Amino acid sequence: MTVGEAAHDAIRRCRWIAQQTEEPGRITRTFLSPPMRAVHNELSTWMAAVGMQTTIDAAGNLRGVYPGASGISRRLYLGSHLDSVPGAGAFDGVLGVVMAIALVHLVAPHRLPFGIEVIGFSEEEGVRFSMPFIGSRAFAGTLDEATLTARDSTGISVREAISGFGLDPARLGEARFAASPLGYLEFHIEQGPVLEDNDLAVGIVQAIAGQSRAEVAFRGRAAHAGTTPMTMRHDALAGAAEWIGNVEAMALGTAGLVATVGRATVSPGAANVIPGECALTVDVRHANDPIRHDALERLKTVAQAIAARRALTIEWRPYLDQPATCMTPSFVSILERAASAAGATAPLMTSGAGHDAVVVAPHMPVGMLFVRSPGGISHHPDETVREEDVAVALSTGLNALELLAGTVDG
Amino acid sequence: MTVGEAAHDAIRRCRWIAQQTEEPGRITRTFLSPPMRAVHNELSTWMAAVGMQTTIDAAGNLRGVYPGASGISRRLYLGSHLDSVPGAGAFDGVLGVVMAIALVHLVAPHRLPFGIEVIGFSEEEGVRFSMPFIGSRAFAGTLDEATLTARDSTGISVREAISGFGLDPARLGEARFAASPLGYLEFHIEQGPVLEDNDLAVGIVQAIAGQSRAEVAFRGRAAHAGTTPMTMRHDALAGAAEWIGNVEAMALGTAGLVATVGRATVSPGAANVIPGECALTVDVRHANDPIRHDALERLKTVAQAIAARRALTIEWRPYLDQPATCMTPSFVSILERAASAAGATAPLMTSGAGHDAVVVAPHMPVGMLFVRSPGGISHHPDETVREEDVAVALSTGLNALELLAGTVDG
Repeated sequence: MTVGEAAHDAIRRCRWIAQQTEEPGRITRTFLSPPMRAVHNELSTWMAAVGMQTTIDAAGNLRGVYPGASGISRRLYLGSHLDSVPGAGAFDGVLGVVMAIALVHLVAPHRLPFGIEVIGFSEEEGVRFSMPFIGSRAFAGTLDEATLTARDSTGISVREAISGFGLDPARLGEARFAASPLGYLEFHIEQGPVLEDNDLAVGIVQAIAGQSRAEVAFRGRAAHAGTTPMTMRHDALAGAAEWIGNVEAMALGTAGLVATVGRATVSPGAANVIPGECALTVDVRHANDPIRHDALERLKTVAQAIAARRALTIEWRPYLDQPATCMTPSFVSILERAASAAGATAPLMTSGAGHDAVVVAPHMPVGMLFVRSPGGISHHPDETVREEDVAVALSTGLNALELLAGTVDG
Repeated sequence: MTVGEAAHDAIRRCRWIAQQTEEPGRITRTFLSPPMRAVHNELSTWMAAVGMQTTIDAAGNLRGVYPGASGISRRLYLGSHLDSVPGAGAFDGVLGVVMAIALVHLVAPHRLPFGIEVIGFSEEEGVRFSMPFIGSRAFAGTLDEATLTARDSTGISVREAISGFGLDPARLGEARFAASPLGYLEFHIEQGPVLEDNDLAVGIVQAIAGQSRAEVAFRGRAAHAGTTPMTMRHDALAGAAEWIGNVEAMALGTAGLVATVGRATVSPGAANVIPGECALTVDVRHANDPIRHDALERLKTVAQAIAARRALTIEWRPYLDQPATCMTPSFVSILERAASAAGATAPLMTSGAGHDAVVVAPHMPVGMLFVRSPGGISHHPDETVREEDVAVALSTGLNALELLAGTVDG
C-alpha cells in the first residue's frame, strides 16, 4: 500500500465511523454510547489484520499493540479520541486514531526498535459528563473518584456507564501506560483557519492554550409573562443575555482571548412564563495562563454586578482549569525534520483547542501534528480534510517513526 | 355547608390536585398527560356526589351537568382549565374549576331556571404543543386541522394524544357547547399584584389584553470554541442575547407593554462549541391591539438588523395573534352587583393574562372574576390564595347565579 492509497483509505474509514451515531441524521457519539461498539469492532478487525493485539481497557479506550523488535519493551503511543460533540464532523479525533493504525499498516511487517501502541481514547469532548478527557486521564492514571461518580443527564455515573458497557471499573488501574514510555504522538485536524490561510497541509503544535470552563446560573423569579409589569420582574434570561453580551465584548477586546457561551438552559421554559433560571456554560482560552485567569475573574465580577442590579442571584461553578501545555522540544524538533523530509513547510502553532496530549504531557514526551481543516470548520457536519494533506501527514509520521528509531538506536 | 367551609374545602382540593404531576417534586400537568386522569376521577366523583352527570369530551375536557328546573334546557357554563405550566403553582386554572363545582355544591339541591355545566378545560397554557386553548377551542367549535396535526416534542400529534388517552378524535364535534347558551363565567386567580396592592379580595375583569407570540430562530455557524477567532464567529446565541436585551428595553420604554422571551434552546449545546442556532419564543401583550402589533413589528426589524450585522440568518414565525377581548357588559354589571351584595369592593381590571374566556367570548356572553394573588405570584410553586378571598369570591358567585336567575325569570 502506498502512502497515497493509505490516505484515501483513512478518509474512507473516518466516513464509515461517522455513520456510527446515537442520533439519526447527525453525528453524535458520546462516551461509551452504543455506536462506539461498532467502531471498536471495525478498528479492532483492521488492527488485527495488520498484526496488532487489541483490547478495550476498563475506561473504554481501544488499544492495539504492534510489537517492536525482539526483546524490546519500550512503547511509542500513537492515538487520539473516538468520541464526538453533538452534530459533529467525521474527522475530529477519529482521523488521529485511523492515521495511527494506517502508519502501523504502512510500517508492517518491519519491526522498529520500539513497540507501537495505538490508542483510541473513549472520551475527550466532555459532552456526556460535562468533564473532558475521561479516556486519556485513565491512560495517564489520573482519573479521580469525583469523575467516576459524576452523573450524566439521565443520572448514570461514569462508573455505571463503564459497567453498562460490559467493562470492569475495578480494572481501571490497568488502563495506565506501561513503564518507560517513549512518548505520545497525536495527529489531529487543526479545527481552525490558520493552515488554510497560509495554504499549508500540516503544522506542528508548539503549545496548547490553557482553558477555563465554568457553569454559571442566573436565578430570578418565575412569574406570569402577562401580569407581571416589566419593572417588577426578576428575569433570569434577561440577566443572562446581558452577561453573554459582556462575555463577547471582553473577548473581542483582549488580544488572543476566546470566550464562548456554548450552552444555555432556561427554566421553566414556557413561552408565557418569565424565566426563573438560566444555566450557562462559559469557556475561556488563552496561551497565557495569567491573562486567562484574569479574564475569568473579570467575567465573574461582571456577572455579579448584573445579578445585583437586577436582584438576581448567581451561582458560579468553575469545573475546568487546564493550564497551557508546551509540547516536548525534542518531539517538536523531530516533527520539524520529519515534515521537512516529506517536502512540507510546517509552521509552529499554538493550538486553541485542548487535546488528549495535554493530559498525557506530564507523564511522557508529547508531540502533535495538525492537518489542515478546509474552511477552518470543525464540530460541524461540514468538517473535512483533503486526501493530499493526509498523505503529507502520513509521510511526516513515517519519517518521524524513522527519526525516533534513530534516537532509540543511538 | 357554609361558604366559609366551601372555601376551605376548595383550597384543600386544589392542593390535592397539585400533587397529580408529571414531574416528581414540582407541579407540571400538560395536556392529556397521565396525572390528568386522577384529576378527572377525583373531580367526577365529587360532581356525581352533588348531583351532576359527568363526562370527558373528546378534547379531554371534564364536564358535569347540573340540571335546571324541570323543562329547562338553557345552560350557564362555569369553568376554567386543569392543565398547568411546568413548575406551576396549585391554583392557576384549577381554582376556577373547583370553585365552579363548589358553587353547585352550595346551590344543590335547589333548582335554578337554567342548567349549570361545569367544565374543566384540558389545555390552556400552550405548553405541550406550543398552542394554547386546545380545550376551550374544542368547546367553542373552533379547533382546526392545523392544531390537530401539531406535534409535541416527542413527535405525538394532538389527535394521537387524544387517542392515546382513550378518547375518540372523531367525536370532537360533540365537545361544542349546546345551543342558546346563557353564558360563561370564569373564576381565576389574578396572577398579578394589582388586587394585593389595593388590599382587595376580588376584581372584575373588563378586558383581556391581546397577545402575540412568535418563534424566533437565530442561525449562525457551529464551530470550535477554541480555534475560531472572535472576529470570524457567527455565534447564534450572542446574536440572540443582543436581541433579548432589545426586547426588554423596548417593553420598558412602551407604557403598558409587556414582552417576554420565555424559552431559549441552543444547538448543538456543548460547552466547547460555538452555538450554531438559538431558538426563542417571544410573548408580547398590550390592551391596545395596534400598539401590540407595532411593537412586534419593531422587534422583528431589530432582530433582522442584528442578524444582518452578524451574518446570521433569522426565522420569524408568529404563531399566536389573539386580539384584546372585552367582557360582556351585562355580565360585568351582574358581577359588580353580586360583589357589592357580598360586601366586597371589586375594581374593574384589565387582565394581562389570556384566559379561556377569550376563546369563548365570540360565542356567548362572558364574565370573569379575579381572586387576589398574594405576592402577585403565579406560574410558580409559591402561588397561593387566601381562604377568606375565596369565600368572598364564592359569595359573589352565588349572588351572580341569583341575579342571573332573575334575568332569566324576568
